[in-house]
Amino acid sequence: MRIEIWSDVVCPWCYIGKRRLETALADFEHADEVEVVWRSFQLDPGAPRDGGELAIDSIARKYGQSREGARQMMDQVEAVAAEEGLVYRLGETPHVNTVDAHRVIHLALAEGGPALQGAVKEALLAAYFTHARNVADHEVLREVAVGAGLDAERVSALLASDELTAEVWADMEQAQRYGATGVPFFVVDGRYGVSGAQPADSLAQVLDRAWQEAHPAPLVMQSDAANGVCGPDGCPV
Amino acid sequence: MRIEIWSDVVCPWCYIGKRRLETALADFEHADEVEVVWRSFQLDPGAPRDGGELAIDSIARKYGQSREGARQMMDQVEAVAAEEGLVYRLGETPHVNTVDAHRVIHLALAEGGPALQGAVKEALLAAYFTHARNVADHEVLREVAVGAGLDAERVSALLASDELTAEVWADMEQAQRYGATGVPFFVVDGRYGVSGAQPADSLAQVLDRAWQEAHPAPLVMQSDAANGVCGPDGCPV
Repeated sequence: MRIEIWSDVVCPWCYIGKRRLETALADFEHADEVEVVWRSFQLDPGAPRDGGELAIDSIARKYGQSREGARQMMDQVEAVAAEEGLVYRLGETPHVNTVDAHRVIHLALAEGGPALQGAVKEALLAAYFTHARNVADHEVLREVAVGAGLDAERVSALLASDELTAEVWADMEQAQRYGATGVPFFVVDGRYGVSGAQPADSLAQVLDRAWQEAHPAPLVMQSDAANGVCGPDGCPV
Repeated sequence: MRIEIWSDVVCPWCYIGKRRLETALADFEHADEVEVVWRSFQLDPGAPRDGGELAIDSIARKYGQSREGARQMMDQVEAVAAEEGLVYRLGETPHVNTVDAHRVIHLALAEGGPALQGAVKEALLAAYFTHARNVADHEVLREVAVGAGLDAERVSALLASDELTAEVWADMEQAQRYGATGVPFFVVDGRYGVSGAQPADSLAQVLDRAWQEAHPAPLVMQSDAANGVCGPDGCPV
């Protein structure tokens, strides 16, 4: 079973959704046969790389609010994150571009498969939300990616080029074809979609349903006649 | 979509079930994408080839009834057959073995695909139920098969050998694995089973359901969050 998750590195609900999926998978009988693949989604493709503005100020601008108003919204998200065991520092995180972070996440998939990609994705989310680091900065990206297991020279070569940029955009186009306008967005076996950081129970139900669909019983009896059937003992009318 | 039908040439409900499926298919939007394949099932593998006993007498023996008692049962089946436009002559049909008829039906599939097989199957059922012919007799089999489009020499070679006997038994073993103890037994796409000559409406429902399963919408949304999702306009809590 394959779960694809469209997600952004700077999306607060995405990290929460990741934990909820992990909770659902921890109780899922067939978790060892599940492959999780991370897909790219940029909430703000026009965000700068320098990290000079705090996310909280960018949000206050977007909503036409004071920093205190934005802070209240963030407090609520931080409380939800804490319920999932996540420490968010939303008063300190910078408003930054994520295209390079997504390229690194794609590189991890290409170089080490879903396991390495999962480690890199987790490290980048922690770097951003818990440590409020600038995940657009190439030095930061290199350090986090190498810490998660990627080869340093390979990451440097990627960041010095445009490599895998097309893959990031292809993911975003795919999300659009699915009708996803926000993230996290989960797709199970290319068939079942879940929008938003749903509770672990809801995600567990989707896993069960998708598993059953993918592993049908040999035959689903739609109808079983008491008559209208001939057997070795005759043909009851 | 593929419909496999386990059926015997001497099974009264099988011919009725065939007509009902044809009724269901006549109204089915995707009928031109449906392939029907006939599978072998022998109700009485120990039946003789000579046709010396009438089926009605064999049935009376089996049920411990008089010929008149058996006749009453057959009257009821004949009435149901008539509702499907079928003329049954159950007072005249012989009690005969069908392994060779099934070999001919397998040959038709091998030589001309489902279309030729369907024509041969129909011709054999008509020969037996409407014309009360001995479908174990090689001359009869040859005449009926050739009339439906099979090559005369090919049929003669088959009947002079044991060819395709293994395929007949393989079909019966497959029916057993599906848990089918009687016929007709319909299997749609290897997934949906229908036992018995169900009404055309019931068969139509199974066709619809199987078609939908085989042609899923791009994505089934299991849940769509009002919150817990970040989009270009922010992350509502």
